[in-house]
Amino acid sequence: MGLLHYPVYNKNYDTIASAITTFDLHDCSRLAKTYGVKAFYVITPLEDQQALARRVLKHWTDGYGAEYNRTRKEALELMSVSPSLEACVEEIAGREAQRPVLIVTDAARKKAPGLTYTQARAMVRADQLIFLLFGTAWGLVEEMFEQADYLLDPVEGYTNYNHLSVRSAAAVILDRLAGRDQLEF
Amino acid sequence: MGLLHYPVYNKNYDTIASAITTFDLHDCSRLAKTYGVKAFYVITPLEDQQALARRVLKHWTDGYGAEYNRTRKEALELMSVSPSLEACVEEIAGREAQRPVLIVTDAARKKAPGLTYTQARAMVRADQLIFLLFGTAWGLVEEMFEQADYLLDPVEGYTNYNHLSVRSAAAVILDRLAGRDQLEF
Repeated sequence: MGLLHYPVYNKNYDTIASAITTFDLHDCSRLAKTYGVKAFYVITPLEDQQALARRVLKHWTDGYGAEYNRTRKEALELMSVSPSLEACVEEIAGREAQRPVLIVTDAARKKAPGLTYTQARAMVRADQLIFLLFGTAWGLVEEMFEQADYLLDPVEGYTNYNHLSVRSAAAVILDRLAGRDQLEF
Repeated sequence: MGLLHYPVYNKNYDTIASAITTFDLHDCSRLAKTYGVKAFYVITPLEDQQALARRVLKHWTDGYGAEYNRTRKEALELMSVSPSLEACVEEIAGREAQRPVLIVTDAARKKAPGLTYTQARAMVRADQLIFLLFGTAWGLVEEMFEQADYLLDPVEGYTNYNHLSVRSAAAVILDRLAGRDQLEF
C-alpha cells in the first residue's frame, strides 16, 4: 500500500505536495502489519518531508522507541519512503518479478464500472499482486486515475457524509479487503 | 459512542487517566457522522483535558475552523465532553427515555461468549439503543468489563498482530456494524 503526498489536490483543487502527518505513518504501518500487507510506502518528492518520515522510522525501529514499544517497531519496519508512485511500482516490480495491479481510492468519485469490495476482496484472496494507493489532503489528482488499473468504490456508511480521514478510510478498506471475520456477514 | 480516557491501563497495567489525542477527536467525530452515530462522548475527569477537548470543539464548530471547513463542523457537532461513563449513560438514558445497551471493546481479550460482529450488526439494524465504548492507552480497566452488557470480539486481520490505534479500531468496528456495503460479503 502507498500513501501519496504528491500530486494531490488542496481545498481549492490546486495540485500540491501535502505535508506528512506523523499519525498517518503510525496508523497505516499498524494497519499494514495487522492485515498482512507486505510493504507500506510513504510517497513524497520533498526532501525535508522524506527526512521527517525517515526520522520517525528510525526512532521507532532503531532508537529509543524500538525499546519502548516492540509492537510499534514491528509495524514501522514495513514502512519505507519513496519519491514517487513510479519509483514504488518499479521497486515492487523488481522485487516481485511482476508489475502490481494499481488500485486507487477516492472518497468523492464513483466511476462506472468501479471496483466493488467483493471484487477487490476476491483479488486479495487469489493472491494477486496489488498496490493499493491512498491520497492525502483533498485526494489524488485526476491524472492518477488514468494510470490506475482500478478505482475502488468509495467507503460509505448509511449517511451521505463521507469525509473520513485517510487513516480511517485506510482502516475500513483494509478490513473490507483482508479482515478475518468478513465472510460471516 | 464514547472514547474513555479514565480509567484505562498504561503500559505497565497501572490505572491512569490518559491524555487526549486531538486526532482521535477529529477522526472519531468524522466516523460518527459517516456511520450515523447520534453522539460521540469524549470522556475524561481531568478538567484541563476537558478544556482542551472543548477548545478543539469550539474552534471547529464556532471559530475559524467552522468557516474554513464546513464538513468538519458537521462532524464535530456530534461531539461532547463528559466526566465519566456513568454521566454519559445518565445523559443518554434521560434523552432517550431508556438505558443504552453498553458494548465495550478490547483488542486483547476474547470472552466466551463474546459478542460477534454479526450479532452486533443485527442489534444496530434492529435499532437498539447502543452505547459503544472504546478505551485509550492500553485499554479499559478490568472493572469496566463487569459493567458492560457485552464485550465485542476483537478486530482481527489475517495475522496475529492486533495493535491498531483506537482511531483505526473504531473505523473498522463502525464499518462492520453500520457500513453500507457489508451485506455483499
